Amino acid sequence: MPNFQTVRGMRDLLPEEAEPLNFVTCKARETAQLYGYREVITPVVEPYELLSAKSGEEIRQRMFTFKDLGDRAVALRPEFTASIARLATTALKTEPKPLRVFSVGSVYRYDEPQRGRYREFWQSNFELMGSDKPEADAETILLTNNLMKATGLQNYSFKIGHIGILRGMLNLANIDDKTQNTILQLMDKKEYSKALDLVADKEFRVVLKDLFELKGETPFETVDQIEKTVNGCKEAAAATQNLRDVLWLVNECGCPVSTVEPAFARGLEYYTGMIFEVNVPELDVALGGGGRYDKLIEVFGGEPTPAVGVAHGLDRIALALQTQKTPLAAQRMKKAVVIPVQEVLKGEAIKISQMLREAGVLVEFEVMGRKMGKALEDADRRKVDYAVIVGEREMEKGAVVVRDLAKHEQTTVEIDKLLEKIKG
Amino acid sequence: MPNFQTVRGMRDLLPEEAEPLNFVTCKARETAQLYGYREVITPVVEPYELLSAKSGEEIRQRMFTFKDLGDRAVALRPEFTASIARLATTALKTEPKPLRVFSVGSVYRYDEPQRGRYREFWQSNFELMGSDKPEADAETILLTNNLMKATGLQNYSFKIGHIGILRGMLNLANIDDKTQNTILQLMDKKEYSKALDLVADKEFRVVLKDLFELKGETPFETVDQIEKTVNGCKEAAAATQNLRDVLWLVNECGCPVSTVEPAFARGLEYYTGMIFEVNVPELDVALGGGGRYDKLIEVFGGEPTPAVGVAHGLDRIALALQTQKTPLAAQRMKKAVVIPVQEVLKGEAIKISQMLREAGVLVEFEVMGRKMGKALEDADRRKVDYAVIVGEREMEKGAVVVRDLAKHEQTTVEIDKLLEKIKG
Repeated sequence: MPNFQTVRGMRDLLPEEAEPLNFVTCKARETAQLYGYREVITPVVEPYELLSAKSGEEIRQRMFTFKDLGDRAVALRPEFTASIARLATTALKTEPKPLRVFSVGSVYRYDEPQRGRYREFWQSNFELMGSDKPEADAETILLTNNLMKATGLQNYSFKIGHIGILRGMLNLANIDDKTQNTILQLMDKKEYSKALDLVADKEFRVVLKDLFELKGETPFETVDQIEKTVNGCKEAAAATQNLRDVLWLVNECGCPVSTVEPAFARGLEYYTGMIFEVNVPELDVALGGGGRYDKLIEVFGGEPTPAVGVAHGLDRIALALQTQKTPLAAQRMKKAVVIPVQEVLKGEAIKISQMLREAGVLVEFEVMGRKMGKALEDADRRKVDYAVIVGEREMEKGAVVVRDLAKHEQTTVEIDKLLEKIKG
Repeated sequence: MPNFQTVRGMRDLLPEEAEPLNFVTCKARETAQLYGYREVITPVVEPYELLSAKSGEEIRQRMFTFKDLGDRAVALRPEFTASIARLATTALKTEPKPLRVFSVGSVYRYDEPQRGRYREFWQSNFELMGSDKPEADAETILLTNNLMKATGLQNYSFKIGHIGILRGMLNLANIDDKTQNTILQLMDKKEYSKALDLVADKEFRVVLKDLFELKGETPFETVDQIEKTVNGCKEAAAATQNLRDVLWLVNECGCPVSTVEPAFARGLEYYTGMIFEVNVPELDVALGGGGRYDKLIEVFGGEPTPAVGVAHGLDRIALALQTQKTPLAAQRMKKAVVIPVQEVLKGEAIKISQMLREAGVLVEFEVMGRKMGKALEDADRRKVDYAVIVGEREMEKGAVVVRDLAKHEQTTVEIDKLLEKIKG
């Protein structure tokens, strides 16, 4: 007898769980369309080399890595950006800029399972390539806002930071890239004092500590304070101005930004500029996040191409909706069962089912060969709207019996008028 | 510099290829809904034990198998049925029958890549559990017919067979299950003489050879001939009658059945009854197929549960549509670009974009900071319908300039009336 469990960290989604995930996925596709992002589909199985190139040590160690039957080192994608960067340097290389692409699908990370965090999860991923302007950064936040709003999610808010401010300061402190990456990863895990320990220069350590701790009453006030703190570091000052520009644009559109956090870092190594996350109070994990990565396409052998992207955790958004008890704004179709009274009428009854389906009615055909009473009882339990009963006597006159299961009424209806009766 | 190739047998789907695949996927979801199948989502990564239990030697050897970081023997699913059988014996165990479930997603097989056959491919999978009646078998064929019709596919047709006829004969010839499986697998590869070599009894070999070779003018005529050939084998005769019942129901609904093939077998070990495939002349590979598997849920430790299912090759259907040059019946949205003339108007312009998107207009915001001429040239090339130009002079009067890019006309339009202008 085979193993009945799913693999640890993986799960089955039953209809009640699959439905909200599909709903959110649909909203992500609609958002992509409204913003002019075209869909690309990249493989779940990718060369290990590609996926590990720039993802950061943290994620590298948590990939599902193996050799295929041809002895190739492969892994299951832990995110989409590496695959998209590959596309940008190959098949989409000559596409005019800006290039807007979108993907949706499952990704895999060997994390410790917890609420809202599984080893298989679903993302929608948007990438905007070719623009270094703040309006491009703003677009990734705005489309995320659109997606959240479209799902009906409540009380979500954005947290914004800027890797350029930190890198600017660390560069000025003469800290090499590798140490910088380690510092940013420690910060991502909120291990700030460990991160500061890696900064040799005492003066810088103090300035960085101030930077990490500052917090204004409003996002704009925080930006003002950052500006003062990084005073003297040209690179960090320019990054701060860029952050202000992005913030202004998203604020103009009424996007709910709760905080600007100078100490905010994200797990992926490739970010170079603005970064953000979106959260709800009900969940400990972010519902989505992204940022600017201006060097990545170069790393993959392409022309220098500024780029900004965002990934949304679709199953997490679905979980947040369930937690908030938000009803899904999904349409309900009319639902019918078709039941032949006699064996010999199965052919006629199945034809009637087809006619109804072609007109957009959900039809469950009676495939159990049950007696009428049993079949109707079952239909009642399943919240079916109408039972269409195909019997010899009525069929002789080209008619069927239609039973309204909510009203407990039944009438004889000519087949020609059946659709009208059921669709109302 | 990392590896730029996809893993052998895997591929990137660009927007031109992703779009038809999504179109077919949508049609599969619509079909599921019309027939009352509810969606479940099962993991891509499953225990090796589960996937190998009843899939057949052929597929077992072509699975992507590996150990995860917890040293678990896992594999990428080569099909959906094992996962669904697991669900049927666990979370869905107590669901009333008939139980209709649907899945859609990618599956993995280490096959030799060829046109229409990749190592990552997409399926929609329908399973109907709890009924042993021919109307259940017919339903899987009919819903496949619906799906094909809904995509606009031309010239497809069904091939139908019945494993019960072959098993009946082989049982009568006292051939053990393992040898029977080998025979069926050889038949699936059309190696009929090798298959016959495994039948020791000469008389049976002759009857089986006759059975393999018979072919009527019509599907019903073939069934008549099968009936004569298996005369004397009760089990095979009952299977032939069952095949006739299924054929009658699908024929009533105008389903295009091209042939009934007694020598038809499918790669999966678990089939017990009717089996079918759907094909188009343009492709060597089947676009979908399925059949009845009455023992599988038992093998997985569940109650004896008759079941029938079908899987559709979604990317193959998309390929067939492209080969037939069938235009996709997809809706086209109105498309606009919004261009701020002055830097200072970016905020206003981005707000106008949001307003248009909320009303369902596809908006590409000018994120490149290009001069008007360049931006309009680009919009023209991208077949945009309207350019919305946000300039200081017009904004003072609460208006923008709208340029119809097809007609090369431009007019000043009040922001209040912008939607009306664009949506027509």
